[in-house]
Amino acid sequence: MGKLYVIGIGPGGFPHMTIRAMDAIKESDIIVGYNKYIDMIKPLLAGKEIFSTGMKGEEERCKKALELSHDKIVSVVSTGDSGIYGMAGLILQLRMDEEIEVIPGVTASSAAASVLGAPLMHDNCNISLSDLMTPYELIQNRVNLAAEGDFVISLYNPKSKGRPHYLRECINIIKMHRDGTTPIAVVKNALRDGQEVSISTLDTFDDNIADMLSIVIIGNSQSYVKDGKFITPRGYNV
Amino acid sequence: MGKLYVIGIGPGGFPHMTIRAMDAIKESDIIVGYNKYIDMIKPLLAGKEIFSTGMKGEEERCKKALELSHDKIVSVVSTGDSGIYGMAGLILQLRMDEEIEVIPGVTASSAAASVLGAPLMHDNCNISLSDLMTPYELIQNRVNLAAEGDFVISLYNPKSKGRPHYLRECINIIKMHRDGTTPIAVVKNALRDGQEVSISTLDTFDDNIADMLSIVIIGNSQSYVKDGKFITPRGYNV
Repeated sequence: MGKLYVIGIGPGGFPHMTIRAMDAIKESDIIVGYNKYIDMIKPLLAGKEIFSTGMKGEEERCKKALELSHDKIVSVVSTGDSGIYGMAGLILQLRMDEEIEVIPGVTASSAAASVLGAPLMHDNCNISLSDLMTPYELIQNRVNLAAEGDFVISLYNPKSKGRPHYLRECINIIKMHRDGTTPIAVVKNALRDGQEVSISTLDTFDDNIADMLSIVIIGNSQSYVKDGKFITPRGYNV
Repeated sequence: MGKLYVIGIGPGGFPHMTIRAMDAIKESDIIVGYNKYIDMIKPLLAGKEIFSTGMKGEEERCKKALELSHDKIVSVVSTGDSGIYGMAGLILQLRMDEEIEVIPGVTASSAAASVLGAPLMHDNCNISLSDLMTPYELIQNRVNLAAEGDFVISLYNPKSKGRPHYLRECINIIKMHRDGTTPIAVVKNALRDGQEVSISTLDTFDDNIADMLSIVIIGNSQSYVKDGKFITPRGYNV
């Protein structure tokens, strides 16, 4: 009998992978994933069969992984948390009767936040700006409501060539609700090679800094920067 | 020279701790934390000095940890992610010039989601129902806006003796925007001893199941349950 692990490897560097994720990869016969993620865990893969595809091959990867898991131990890997914009959803949508274990990881907004200080200490939301499967009007509406509700906002997939203006437009929506001095940060490659951090304010923000691999975090009305650290206090003065 | 690690140990069982978190604890001279969290990592603590306090002693713990870190290696531990309703914020708020590293972990909503299936696969938010430092009107307003925006909603601290009706009231707010058949789940002690899971719908939900240690997750308009797994699909049909 086989088994399928759906694994979030965290930000990408080994240290921030969970022990359970590492053990499951070691136990697996076959590893399935996007080329770039497979490269991140190469030292664990000696002697294993690898099935990797380009970025667009998600559904193909999931079907293959499910099929292979009928008689082998298979791991599907993605960065961050497998359950937040990861592969867990598609795997479970396509599942027939395969045995599946979802292994969570440190999601990208947590990784970015740890590098910045403590921006996510109060109510917060994750919004993806990718419109591949979500109407842009719905994304804009969510950004607007999150800003109105004073949530700390983490933007995933903030930019791609096909939609270069979305980030700017969404920041402009947020500015309708939040002070121009509110901290905003861009973190590229958090906790892995190539890490880059930029902290500015809504008024001075340059959206050209962000790319597809970045996470953008916008503070709530209480957030501030102290000694280079982006901090959202635990509460409001009540 | 000392150093202070602010560590999220994840859901509480060893396997879901990151390798970095474990290494930092092993490297530390002194471990600071709430009694219950200290108990969870006991096997790592042989020969270390422990400074533990009850639940209300957060500020005291943080000040002590900062002070001790002037000439020792100190770890402040909390469950989940240290940066989401954890200790990272208070530590950085109180910090003078101590050297600090925030080490992220698997946050409670990710842990709960992994047990349920894949409820957080689309835009989602974390809201704490604790009104200790946040006015209840603001919490209700956030729940309302998150429901209006079709976010998947994870409720932290959903219940305590001092506010037994908040959870019921917030679910009623969500029901104004979302179908009664929307899946809702309560996960107690996700991925650690005593794990309990309950999946129902907004119409059939019994808020008595939830307690302070639970995470409550409410699906978006697309979420469904299949073979006992709570799934939010990756997107909308566009």
